[in-house]
Amino acid sequence: MDNYAKLWLEYSPKGKNKDCKLLKNIVFGGTASDRIIENAKKELTLGLKGMLDITPVITVNFDEAAGKKPEQTALSSGKEILDSEEYTVFIKDESLCISSKSSTGILYGAFDILRTVASEKDVETVYADDKTVRPSNPLRMLNHWDNMDGSIERGYSGKSFFYENNEIVINERTVDYARLIASVGINAVVINNVNVKQAASYMITDRYFAKLAELGEIFAGYGIGLYLSLNYASTIEIGGMDSADPLDEGVKAWWKEKMAEVFKKIPTLKGFLVKADSEGRPGPFTYGRTQADGANMLADIAKEHNALIIWRCFVYNCRQDWRDKKTDRARAGYDNFMPMDGDYHDNVILQIKNGPMDFQIREPISPLFGGLKKTNQMLEVQIAQEYTGQQIDLCYLIPMFKEILEFKTYCNGGTKTSDLSDKECSDGTVTGSEGWSDIEDIGGNGSVKPDSCDTVADIISGKTFNSRFSGIAAVTNTGNDFNWTGDYLAGANLFGFGRLAFSTGLSSGEIAEEFIRMTISNDRDVVDTIKDILLPSRAIYEKYTCPLGIGWMVKPNTHYGCSVDGYEYDRWGTYHRADHLGLGVDRTDKGTGYALQYNEPNASVYNSPEKCPDELVLFFHHLPYTHVLHSGKTVIQHIYDSHFEGYAEAEQLAAKWETLRDKIDKDIFDNVSERFTRQLYNAREWRDQVNTYFHRISGIEDEKGREIY
Amino acid sequence: MDNYAKLWLEYSPKGKNKDCKLLKNIVFGGTASDRIIENAKKELTLGLKGMLDITPVITVNFDEAAGKKPEQTALSSGKEILDSEEYTVFIKDESLCISSKSSTGILYGAFDILRTVASEKDVETVYADDKTVRPSNPLRMLNHWDNMDGSIERGYSGKSFFYENNEIVINERTVDYARLIASVGINAVVINNVNVKQAASYMITDRYFAKLAELGEIFAGYGIGLYLSLNYASTIEIGGMDSADPLDEGVKAWWKEKMAEVFKKIPTLKGFLVKADSEGRPGPFTYGRTQADGANMLADIAKEHNALIIWRCFVYNCRQDWRDKKTDRARAGYDNFMPMDGDYHDNVILQIKNGPMDFQIREPISPLFGGLKKTNQMLEVQIAQEYTGQQIDLCYLIPMFKEILEFKTYCNGGTKTSDLSDKECSDGTVTGSEGWSDIEDIGGNGSVKPDSCDTVADIISGKTFNSRFSGIAAVTNTGNDFNWTGDYLAGANLFGFGRLAFSTGLSSGEIAEEFIRMTISNDRDVVDTIKDILLPSRAIYEKYTCPLGIGWMVKPNTHYGCSVDGYEYDRWGTYHRADHLGLGVDRTDKGTGYALQYNEPNASVYNSPEKCPDELVLFFHHLPYTHVLHSGKTVIQHIYDSHFEGYAEAEQLAAKWETLRDKIDKDIFDNVSERFTRQLYNAREWRDQVNTYFHRISGIEDEKGREIY
Repeated sequence: MDNYAKLWLEYSPKGKNKDCKLLKNIVFGGTASDRIIENAKKELTLGLKGMLDITPVITVNFDEAAGKKPEQTALSSGKEILDSEEYTVFIKDESLCISSKSSTGILYGAFDILRTVASEKDVETVYADDKTVRPSNPLRMLNHWDNMDGSIERGYSGKSFFYENNEIVINERTVDYARLIASVGINAVVINNVNVKQAASYMITDRYFAKLAELGEIFAGYGIGLYLSLNYASTIEIGGMDSADPLDEGVKAWWKEKMAEVFKKIPTLKGFLVKADSEGRPGPFTYGRTQADGANMLADIAKEHNALIIWRCFVYNCRQDWRDKKTDRARAGYDNFMPMDGDYHDNVILQIKNGPMDFQIREPISPLFGGLKKTNQMLEVQIAQEYTGQQIDLCYLIPMFKEILEFKTYCNGGTKTSDLSDKECSDGTVTGSEGWSDIEDIGGNGSVKPDSCDTVADIISGKTFNSRFSGIAAVTNTGNDFNWTGDYLAGANLFGFGRLAFSTGLSSGEIAEEFIRMTISNDRDVVDTIKDILLPSRAIYEKYTCPLGIGWMVKPNTHYGCSVDGYEYDRWGTYHRADHLGLGVDRTDKGTGYALQYNEPNASVYNSPEKCPDELVLFFHHLPYTHVLHSGKTVIQHIYDSHFEGYAEAEQLAAKWETLRDKIDKDIFDNVSERFTRQLYNAREWRDQVNTYFHRISGIEDEKGREIY
Repeated sequence: MDNYAKLWLEYSPKGKNKDCKLLKNIVFGGTASDRIIENAKKELTLGLKGMLDITPVITVNFDEAAGKKPEQTALSSGKEILDSEEYTVFIKDESLCISSKSSTGILYGAFDILRTVASEKDVETVYADDKTVRPSNPLRMLNHWDNMDGSIERGYSGKSFFYENNEIVINERTVDYARLIASVGINAVVINNVNVKQAASYMITDRYFAKLAELGEIFAGYGIGLYLSLNYASTIEIGGMDSADPLDEGVKAWWKEKMAEVFKKIPTLKGFLVKADSEGRPGPFTYGRTQADGANMLADIAKEHNALIIWRCFVYNCRQDWRDKKTDRARAGYDNFMPMDGDYHDNVILQIKNGPMDFQIREPISPLFGGLKKTNQMLEVQIAQEYTGQQIDLCYLIPMFKEILEFKTYCNGGTKTSDLSDKECSDGTVTGSEGWSDIEDIGGNGSVKPDSCDTVADIISGKTFNSRFSGIAAVTNTGNDFNWTGDYLAGANLFGFGRLAFSTGLSSGEIAEEFIRMTISNDRDVVDTIKDILLPSRAIYEKYTCPLGIGWMVKPNTHYGCSVDGYEYDRWGTYHRADHLGLGVDRTDKGTGYALQYNEPNASVYNSPEKCPDELVLFFHHLPYTHVLHSGKTVIQHIYDSHFEGYAEAEQLAAKWETLRDKIDKDIFDNVSERFTRQLYNAREWRDQVNTYFHRISGIEDEKGREIY
């Protein structure tokens, strides 16, 4: 019938809450009606009809709004976004009420109710006490690496649903996409690849204005801000100038005129994402300028239009000589961006990948988090699974994102002890109106919050440094495949990213359960089985691919499948340095010094092979195969064991899935089964290639005498 | 002015033979006038005018033809081709005369004269005695891997000049291409990629008949036969049938009708080249039939149109498990084709790659040569340099082709001693009418020539087994680049292949000298310098890339540049099996047994690590790094030394070229200089990556203490 799945907006009949009177009278309070409110009404009506055959009476009523101020806040800072997007669901008389300072908050409340019903939780119980949810992060963003020819860079779910033959496509699926992501709390989307080339360079010309304006309106109806990736060299490529020097007056004048035109033609546009000086893309370095020079020039002009410049920190030497053991790609982000901390203007956000390399299954956290103290920051993660299975191998990423968010940066001093618990700082789900202090601007003084608020979650929520803007972005995994994400279970990463970005305090298990209940089944056995499949899947992928944080043992270009030496002799700064005695990269004070980019005590921990956590020990140290880990195993035995275990555990995942054969939708079952078949093939290759490579080079036998080739 | 170079048909002014009266009166004898004769006249007129400002009077005169029979032979066998294409240039009275039984022979004689003049040799001296040249091989063929979308598989010289946007292009360059290759003796061309897909499948439909007929006529005017690569599954892909079973009557009937149509619409068509059951292409194996079944079915029908089926022997399991050490791709050609020796019908030719793998810089000779005794055979070599530098790295291949041709197969018994010298068997340039016996058909009895006629050259010339058809084909290196071959010096491979195919007795140096004189300069210093660059270039490329016959240490897919493990864990049957103790593939009687596919004494030589020539020792044996070679070096020291030497010698090549800066045409100089810059970059990578890999894995130091990373 349809040519795409509805995922968690399926709204199929549910067994619970059928007689819940509260759902028949719903009151929206706290804001005047607008198109977002209309969409919230439509959604509730559609969902409750589908799930419970209830047609609710929905009233927009300022006075019923439990004392909330019926005003729409002009969104001018991260804190104001949070204030306005916070919502409360509560019971009053015979009605279920949602109040918020913004219509977007009302919409989120509506989706909260629909989630409760879809998950077959008891509405009266869930909302017995007022449920107030304040988003954890001001910006919760998806980055599409979609190209205008319809291809998607690192996309494994079909073609783009935004573009076809260099035209922007708008249809029913566009609206459903907005519904899907708004329902999990996404409030910002970059719709084109950060590598802006060819037709995409012309997005900021009248060739595409009309369609972009139309798209922006659809997004705005769901509280989603439209962002574009920008070609830094637009002055040259479409402006016909001979420079993109950010300090050149002609360049500035061109941008001033261009942005005036763009924001006039696309009124909903919220800003731009820029990849400059990266992997061959042009940037301010070309002109001997700093990254701050480039970002600020654009930001100052964008500010006139209340818009943001989100500037990526993925700047490194991608023409490194593999013979050179001093240059270290891991250092590059910090080296390039730290010196200008404080120089970035207040509508610039630096977007920082979670690790210093590039979305490997295991990396340390970027030392820019906790390094930068006077700069707006966003965390960039990737749900596209470029290096983590490409939606063939199952890799539920939420546990990994939790680790990242919970990482203690010790940005406020590693030796002090705080009175506040971590949870109070990091948990995005709070009751009441608790927020952080009213200091509005980080300015140049770097005023900071109490010293325990030092996790990545704290920083990107804006709390730690009272950042003006902050948040989290994911490179998305969507495409025009029937199920949107290639592997149906990869939908848990799309769903989960949004949920986690909105409510960082949710656990991986809670999120998995919500996804399963909303998209597959509320049957307890099914839910538990799929949770048992999802939750360990990242650890399993890590086991059969990447020992001890070494990374990059993938096939060049495609980044799928094992190739131990695939990047060893290349220009990308990605080496394992294995020889017949040992492997790993010395990033200590005796090596590249990368470990020292961290605050203490992290620096000392990473700098020491004895203290460094096993899972990162080869990222920071070159060690003999005979080195004994915290686990008590030698490095080589860990390699053998983890690869044998990883494959065996992948087999168990597939076997667990097989038990669902007649218990769930056949299409979903078959889709995931087919992926598991490919995953097992792939996992066996990883296991045998990695083990064989290290057996051949080390000459050390497996203690357990298993077959190595 | 022009958009492509004229190469050896440049016909620029020459210093010698300006007053040679013989060139003013030229007589063609032995054949009636036709379009080939007209082209020969045009060529001589153009060339002598350009080079010497002489406008010759050319007479076609049967009576002057020194007793040659003035008849055109119907070409119905290899021997008849040679009889007819043989030509004699001689002086009679004040005239220079060319006689031949065919107009093609006259054309070759005309090019012989032009070559003499272009090379500034003295015409009166060269032709003082009658010069009779009999081609060494009946079929001298180029295989174009051009696709109809204009791309060229493994092409490094621009796009196809035959196709653009799925249309056949015919223009002045088409004619010049025919002139260029006819001038070096090519008499057959396959114009489309052996991987026949998409539009190319429709070449045998009326979509392309008109253009193909036109192209065939142009070729025919230069004695060149037109061949097409055929999609074995045409019955399915264009015929709408559900089978391509060669024993299916419906399939046969379809082909019968199809070939009748094709040969009627393209009267000059000489036959088809077929890649079946190879690398995913369909073939008779799909239906449980033999390669002979497939080839014979097509051949029986083609025979009605006096046409050939050239059937490639590149059939192997391309989905091998790298863990499997028993399966050996090297064995596949022999295993698949030998059992049916004698079954292939008499207008089938098996086209056999020079080695058992795939155009590596060093492989043993395919054991099918000397194995097959009752089957028409063609040798397939590759001048495209897919694995040998891709026209970036200089690799003059004629010395390699000479080695291949001179390889003794001992097909007539390894222990007997012959009365005939090798030279008398293998040398294609003979005086007088010497040929082989008049036995016309090999039939099923395998009657053979005296036992010394056992080299590959003897077999493919047709002598050894009195083959009905035979010859040599090269996968060509041409494209629409200005200089046709990307690297100007790669033109020596195109030129040289033709010359060698026509006159196998020519030395690599003679051919190089002809190429240099005809295309760059007759200056003695220049000639000597470029000969010094060309002649060692293959050995140098081998030194810095491929130690001791191991092969395949290249980047996957592109096949350019070093990747020691690039094919080690893949499905292509291409492994080095290196571990911390040693490397190489055991293909002896204790390993895969491949060595035993050879006749004695080759089998015993290859089977023994002591007897096996150094350059192939790792192809046949897995040896410790400490194994001592015939050279007195250990395997590991050989690896280090050859890679250091190879790079140093590549530097010397570039330095020698630099001495020509002001002595030759600037465009040629710059083109080759730019290639040398890239070659040196590449050679340094090879040197350091191979040495580093084996240093790391073996832990053995370089005796000379040079820098390894």
